[in-house]
Amino acid sequence: MSQRGIAILGSTGSIGTATLRVIARHTDRFRVIALTAFGNATLLREQARSVHPQYVGLVAPSGDADRTWATGAECLIEAATRPDVDIVVNAIVGAAGLQATLAALRAGKRVALANKESLVIGGELVLRACREGGGEIIPVDSEHSAIMQCIGARLESEVSRLIITASGGPFREWDVARIAKATIQDALNHPTWTMGRKITVDSATLANKALEVIEAHYLFGVPYDRIDVVVHPQSIIHSFVEFVDGSVLAQLGFPTMELPILYALTHPDRIADAPARRFDPAAASPLTFEPVDVGRFPSLALGIQAGCSGGAAPAVFNGANEQAVCLFLAGAIGFADVPRAIESALAAHAGLPADSIDDVTAADAAARVHVGELFR
Amino acid sequence: MSQRGIAILGSTGSIGTATLRVIARHTDRFRVIALTAFGNATLLREQARSVHPQYVGLVAPSGDADRTWATGAECLIEAATRPDVDIVVNAIVGAAGLQATLAALRAGKRVALANKESLVIGGELVLRACREGGGEIIPVDSEHSAIMQCIGARLESEVSRLIITASGGPFREWDVARIAKATIQDALNHPTWTMGRKITVDSATLANKALEVIEAHYLFGVPYDRIDVVVHPQSIIHSFVEFVDGSVLAQLGFPTMELPILYALTHPDRIADAPARRFDPAAASPLTFEPVDVGRFPSLALGIQAGCSGGAAPAVFNGANEQAVCLFLAGAIGFADVPRAIESALAAHAGLPADSIDDVTAADAAARVHVGELFR
Repeated sequence: MSQRGIAILGSTGSIGTATLRVIARHTDRFRVIALTAFGNATLLREQARSVHPQYVGLVAPSGDADRTWATGAECLIEAATRPDVDIVVNAIVGAAGLQATLAALRAGKRVALANKESLVIGGELVLRACREGGGEIIPVDSEHSAIMQCIGARLESEVSRLIITASGGPFREWDVARIAKATIQDALNHPTWTMGRKITVDSATLANKALEVIEAHYLFGVPYDRIDVVVHPQSIIHSFVEFVDGSVLAQLGFPTMELPILYALTHPDRIADAPARRFDPAAASPLTFEPVDVGRFPSLALGIQAGCSGGAAPAVFNGANEQAVCLFLAGAIGFADVPRAIESALAAHAGLPADSIDDVTAADAAARVHVGELFR
Repeated sequence: MSQRGIAILGSTGSIGTATLRVIARHTDRFRVIALTAFGNATLLREQARSVHPQYVGLVAPSGDADRTWATGAECLIEAATRPDVDIVVNAIVGAAGLQATLAALRAGKRVALANKESLVIGGELVLRACREGGGEIIPVDSEHSAIMQCIGARLESEVSRLIITASGGPFREWDVARIAKATIQDALNHPTWTMGRKITVDSATLANKALEVIEAHYLFGVPYDRIDVVVHPQSIIHSFVEFVDGSVLAQLGFPTMELPILYALTHPDRIADAPARRFDPAAASPLTFEPVDVGRFPSLALGIQAGCSGGAAPAVFNGANEQAVCLFLAGAIGFADVPRAIESALAAHAGLPADSIDDVTAADAAARVHVGELFR
């Protein structure tokens, strides 16, 4: 079997480094062709020395880039569209990942998609690029990987409902007043998953779950009224799929991103791999489930509502959320200001179209400006 | 779509009546061609009046058979091999189901197999009949249906482990001394499933789980050292499949036999059906798992050991168990005598061959005689 060429966009982040660990165990099958990072030149240099990629890109160099490296945002597109690349692992954080997803799909690549914002912001555009370019999207999110594994070779018409699990985040048992006063440290204290800062805050507001519902809608073609969210604090069952005959499948395991990453590289096949911790039902017991209390986590309802509205509303939701989380992490606004910012942006920028990349970029920018001005 | 012709062997039992309920909801797809029962002429007559089968058979008529009905054990073979029958639902209780399974498979039928004893006793013979006759076996047991649904279109080589769930039965929390004194009523008091008397006692001894491990070994070609059993008192997760990459899928739902029956009729497709109770994770919470305590349930270890021994050992195990359960239900022996009888029969009849139907029938008979004499 020939090695498949891999480009890792966002190689110095949580998903990027996990991808390199997975590939290191399977060098007979995968070869890293390209690595790109946003600004962490030190780790990028270390990674490049280890895997010897053909191409290295640093989006925002501050004088510490190697002379052989490409620089600037264009490096993402270059890395994603190289002829020797078969699979693009898009682990870029936020809306910045959309252009690379579109370029990779248009070039007929498989996109192992950890950048859920690509589908949230660019939904229809991404699906069109996928169809027209002959590419394919395999999700890296644990929930969406679970759903894809449960659906397997079955027809979409046999799927009746998706049930996406949510850990509930660090504030699952907090009351509204306490959540409103949550500190940055509180929000970064995720109970079950170790992730980057932005997504960890999104897991505390449950905005991340709204992004996942929108992503699932586009990935699996399931209408919003047939996508449920259930709180499952142990994060063992990664999601459920209900079929038309009433049968339900679930994918599960101890939390690790390495499995969904590996599956995104090998799909539709599976290859032998030694997980860090083999599944043991007795050790995972008990598994509990509870309804989401949207009253305490308004970002979730706002996001799903934006998804149902369609057009550029998901882009506005995402842009407003990214800006608000950025301000929260900078200590400029409180935790309860995040959903307030989103609600305000959605109200102010309703009904925008999403027919082109310019449309969604404009909606994204409008939302960010709106939130910036809200707290000036 | 043309209707598929169904023969139901054991139509008056728990699985048989559930099959008729399922088919009644899908008369556009399925038509009952043949019904057979062991001795319940009253219910059989009622069923025949309702679905108008071409063929009705009563194995053991006591003067109350309709004149148009076939009688005697041959009626099972006749019903199973009719040209207008596409699917044979084998819901016969015990070793008596083997001949019908073999005949149906040799005639190229799909066998929706609720009679796990067919595979336990006749394992290799049944697989050979299936290959040679061009038939197929789709399990109706909830655990094996779950495993088949989890494997889906994947290759057997991608499966690394089966984890079969067990409710633990009514004596899950009883100590050895109390189990030894269990009454018939105690043993028939199953916590999660409503089933026939014989299988309910087998669920109390966990002999049923041993039969299921052996059945899974033959159905899915997985060695015994890669089939685990875990106690799951809620009976919501019907079994797990672990794949070579460490991923685990599970099939789940509120307990009902109607789903595995429907799936056995429609596999590999699924058709829309309204389950009695739609799955709701929060309503099913919590799901707990615990290791099996084989010390308190020796029948489980004896059965798996018989499976590993191969040859006719599983037939001896099953024959001894059937005879012992029969004596227990007749009030002739105590609950703890059931595993004792099995152990004694296995020790006395080790190393018997299973190369022909005569071999396994002889082993089955030897085990029954042995147990009968043990308690004379």
